[in-house]
Amino acid sequence: MTTYRLDIAYDGGGFSGWAVQPGRRTVQGEIEAALERLFGERVVLTVAGRTDAGVHALHQVASFTTERPPPESLIRALNGLTGPDVAIDAAAPAADGFDARRDALSRRYRYRLETGTPPSPFERGRALAWPHRLDRKLLDDCAAALLGEHDFTAFTPTETYHERFSRRVLHAGWGDEPDAERILRFEIEADAFMRGMVRALVGTMLEVGSGRRSPDDFATLLAGAPRAAAGETAAAHGLYLLAVSY
Amino acid sequence: MTTYRLDIAYDGGGFSGWAVQPGRRTVQGEIEAALERLFGERVVLTVAGRTDAGVHALHQVASFTTERPPPESLIRALNGLTGPDVAIDAAAPAADGFDARRDALSRRYRYRLETGTPPSPFERGRALAWPHRLDRKLLDDCAAALLGEHDFTAFTPTETYHERFSRRVLHAGWGDEPDAERILRFEIEADAFMRGMVRALVGTMLEVGSGRRSPDDFATLLAGAPRAAAGETAAAHGLYLLAVSY
Repeated sequence: MTTYRLDIAYDGGGFSGWAVQPGRRTVQGEIEAALERLFGERVVLTVAGRTDAGVHALHQVASFTTERPPPESLIRALNGLTGPDVAIDAAAPAADGFDARRDALSRRYRYRLETGTPPSPFERGRALAWPHRLDRKLLDDCAAALLGEHDFTAFTPTETYHERFSRRVLHAGWGDEPDAERILRFEIEADAFMRGMVRALVGTMLEVGSGRRSPDDFATLLAGAPRAAAGETAAAHGLYLLAVSY
Repeated sequence: MTTYRLDIAYDGGGFSGWAVQPGRRTVQGEIEAALERLFGERVVLTVAGRTDAGVHALHQVASFTTERPPPESLIRALNGLTGPDVAIDAAAPAADGFDARRDALSRRYRYRLETGTPPSPFERGRALAWPHRLDRKLLDDCAAALLGEHDFTAFTPTETYHERFSRRVLHAGWGDEPDAERILRFEIEADAFMRGMVRALVGTMLEVGSGRRSPDDFATLLAGAPRAAAGETAAAHGLYLLAVSY
């Protein structure tokens, strides 16, 4: 039995998310189909960050095990079988028992806002167009409030498969994209995330940055407030899984 | 009679180039249709750089004249009528007689190569995937040879509407994209360009950088050699009109 680790990037625009769904094009489905062809048996991927429809990944990590021998040049063969909107950046044997999800110590996400008017044609599907006023000081206050362990019940759908709603935030901050002053981005690293959590946090922080909600109100949401108390979920196409730490 | 200047960016992927062609979606066609709706009469755009199908523009300039009064907030109205792959970044009256093509002193283009393996999903349609060896010194030699006035007959299609084949190159150079070490780019500024000229130059320089042609051979092409003596035309989706100087 050999355990493999895959390091993957994808443009989420053409996918119904990571997880396999019947009749839909998904990243997991695309890569598992390629692996089945190469190894001659069905394999199942375990993933570090299960991204929703339209969400991108600059660096996703997945793992699988198989008893079959690998094809020659696994990475090249995989890239030859997956679409141009997926890149397998590494594919190699990992330590026995490596599990991309369970072994991950933290995940880091980025959310990108295009603040220019009109939005750049080159940011379509890559950043949320946000031509409205934003107070950076208020956004920074929100990011500071996020640090540490909180109950994020307010930032995940009410109907959820999660059982534990506490997550530990290791980093949170707003900044300008280098060489692209029109792009404002939010980055957050935590031990783990719940479904829709980053997008609900961003949607709620945009209310604060627009003056429609106070930073204090935002901070109180982090103590287990109900979903309805927080703001809207920001669009999927602004979100990127950036890195996974092991 | 008022003369207007438009400053425009577009993702060329969804267009059959700048120039109006019956039954095709073109940038000129898209903007002229919007202007006709806003001014209530047919207007014809004059453009600084007539880009081919698939070529992008970070900063294109066009002009037109009309006797009709402008709508309120011309720029906002224009952006509301054109697709999200076009951005009108400025739209305002210009000096009487301003002509975006005739008055341009120089144009600057950029060609982008994605040198990583596999190519990034986010560079699809934005850069030419070039996973092969390239000798930067040889590329730099070519760029140096380009400076000054030359006969570029070898770098435009044999069947051409051009009558004068001499162009003066003001800048030419290869460099890495900031914060994207996998992206190699070539920039060239000249008084004017012929059809397909930058792409034929890049295609030929890639032969030099790959060791299939010498820099000396490249230099001799700049003295009016026939088209067949030069290399292939590099793909449209790597090319960007970057700036126009007046």
